Amino acid sequence: MIVVKVGGSEGINLEAVADDAAALLKDGKPLILVHGGSHLTNQVSEALGHPPKFITSPSGHTSRRTDRRTLEIFEMVYCGQVNKGLVESLQKRGVNAVGLSGIDGRIWEGSRKAAIRAVEAGRTIVIRDDFTGTVEKINVPLLRSLLDAGYLPVLTPPAISFEGEAINVDADRAAGLTAAALKADTLMMLSNVPGLLRAFPDESSLITHVRRDAIESAAEAAQGRMKKKVLGAQEAIDGGVKRVIFGDARKTEPIRRALAGAGTVFE
Amino acid sequence: MIVVKVGGSEGINLEAVADDAAALLKDGKPLILVHGGSHLTNQVSEALGHPPKFITSPSGHTSRRTDRRTLEIFEMVYCGQVNKGLVESLQKRGVNAVGLSGIDGRIWEGSRKAAIRAVEAGRTIVIRDDFTGTVEKINVPLLRSLLDAGYLPVLTPPAISFEGEAINVDADRAAGLTAAALKADTLMMLSNVPGLLRAFPDESSLITHVRRDAIESAAEAAQGRMKKKVLGAQEAIDGGVKRVIFGDARKTEPIRRALAGAGTVFE
Repeated sequence: MIVVKVGGSEGINLEAVADDAAALLKDGKPLILVHGGSHLTNQVSEALGHPPKFITSPSGHTSRRTDRRTLEIFEMVYCGQVNKGLVESLQKRGVNAVGLSGIDGRIWEGSRKAAIRAVEAGRTIVIRDDFTGTVEKINVPLLRSLLDAGYLPVLTPPAISFEGEAINVDADRAAGLTAAALKADTLMMLSNVPGLLRAFPDESSLITHVRRDAIESAAEAAQGRMKKKVLGAQEAIDGGVKRVIFGDARKTEPIRRALAGAGTVFE
Repeated sequence: MIVVKVGGSEGINLEAVADDAAALLKDGKPLILVHGGSHLTNQVSEALGHPPKFITSPSGHTSRRTDRRTLEIFEMVYCGQVNKGLVESLQKRGVNAVGLSGIDGRIWEGSRKAAIRAVEAGRTIVIRDDFTGTVEKINVPLLRSLLDAGYLPVLTPPAISFEGEAINVDADRAAGLTAAALKADTLMMLSNVPGLLRAFPDESSLITHVRRDAIESAAEAAQGRMKKKVLGAQEAIDGGVKRVIFGDARKTEPIRRALAGAGTVFE
C-alpha cells in the first residue's frame, strides 16, 4: 500500500499524477491519493472578494486564516474543483476513483482549536472563530472497504471535529497519519520542488537521504511549507510506515520516479 | 428505504431537511439524500465572471448551458459548497453522512450528448461542447455497502459518461432512477413550492393526488422545472417505486410532513 500526497501549489502536474496512478494500479499496487489545493483557493478567494489571509504563530508556523467564509471557499476548491477534477482524470484512465473529504464518513476526525495565537505587527493576538484543527483518528474500516472493493480513494481536507464541525487541517500530516493507520509501506509527498532542500529554493541542494534519527533536525532545518511535510514524514515513520519519499510533481511519472529513489528518502 | 431529493432553488431550508433526516434515521428508516444547487451556481457563476446561460430545446425544455468552465463552477458549488455543507449539518446532528457525486465510484453513469439542439433568436443551433447527459446506470453495490455500514449517502450531480467525462445531469431524474435501482418504497422531491400546482405559481392550486395512469398528462400540464420532476416521478414508479411525494422544503419537518401526505402524492 502506498499513500501519495500531491500538493496544491503552482506548477503541479495532476494529469501526470493520474497517468502514473493508473499505471501503478494496473500493476496491482493498492493506492490512496491525498491532495491539497492552496494555490487555487487563493485565486478563488481573491475572485470572490474574500482575499486569503495567513497568520503566523508565535513559534513561526504560517497557516491560512480560516473563518467561516474561507472554509466555504476552501471546500469549493478542495472538495469541488480539485477533488472532482482529479477523480474525473482518473476515471478517464479507467481507474474507479472515489473522492471524499475528511468530513465524509468522519474519515479524518480530530480536535478543533478553541483559540489560536497569532503574531500581528509584533503583538500576539488570540483568534477564536478559526476553523482549524488536527487529525487524530482515521476511519480505517471505510477506507479498507473501498480499497477491498477495488476503488481508489482520493482524499482531501477539511476534516471533522469531534463536535461535527468542518475543520481545515494540514493535508501533509493527515496523509502521514492515514499511511500509518493503514500500515502503508510507503508514504509519498509530491510537491513543486525536487524534495527536501538544504538551501531552499536552490534545487541543487537536494538532500537525498534522511535517516530516522536525523528527522528531527531535518524538521528544524526545513523552511516554510516543508516543515509540515517533514512533520508528516516523522509521524508516518513513528506510526510504522517503512519509508517516506518527497518527490517532484512537476514532471511526468512523478510517482514511479520517486519510487525509484528520485527525491528525498526517509527511512 | 426512502430517497429524498432536495432542490437547489431559493428559499429551501437545508437545516430543516438535516433535522428531519436525523430524526427519521433515529427511528431506523434507511435514507438516501440527493441535492441540487442551481441557485447558488448562478450566483457563483456571476461572481466569477462566467454568468450562467440557459438554452431552450426545440421541444421547449430549458437547461443550463454547460461548457467546461461552467462544469468546473458547477462542481465547486454542488460537490463543494452544498454537498459538504449538508454533510457537515448532518454530522453535527450525529448522522454519519458520506457526500458523493455521481462521478465518484461511477455512482451515476450515463451517456453524454454528442450534440444538443437549442433555439436561439428563432433559429435552431447545434452545440457540441456541452457536458450534459442522462443517467442510465446506478452503482447499487457501492450505495448498498455504505447503507449496510450505517452511512447516509448524500448524492449530487455531476454524473459520469461511459467515456469517463463529468456530465451535468438532471438531479430529479437521477434521484428517480436511484430510488428504482434500490427498490425504495418512497421517492420524495422537496422544492420551494408545496407540490405540483395546477396553475403555477398559485399555491392554492395544489394537486394532492396523481394516479398512475394520469402521470403522463400531469407531465404535460407541469410548467418549467416541474416537468423534469414529474418525469423523475414517472421513471421511479415505472421502476417499481410504490409512491412519489412532492413536498415543500421551505418549512420545518419537510420530510415528515410529506410522508404524512402534505404535498402531491403519486401512487
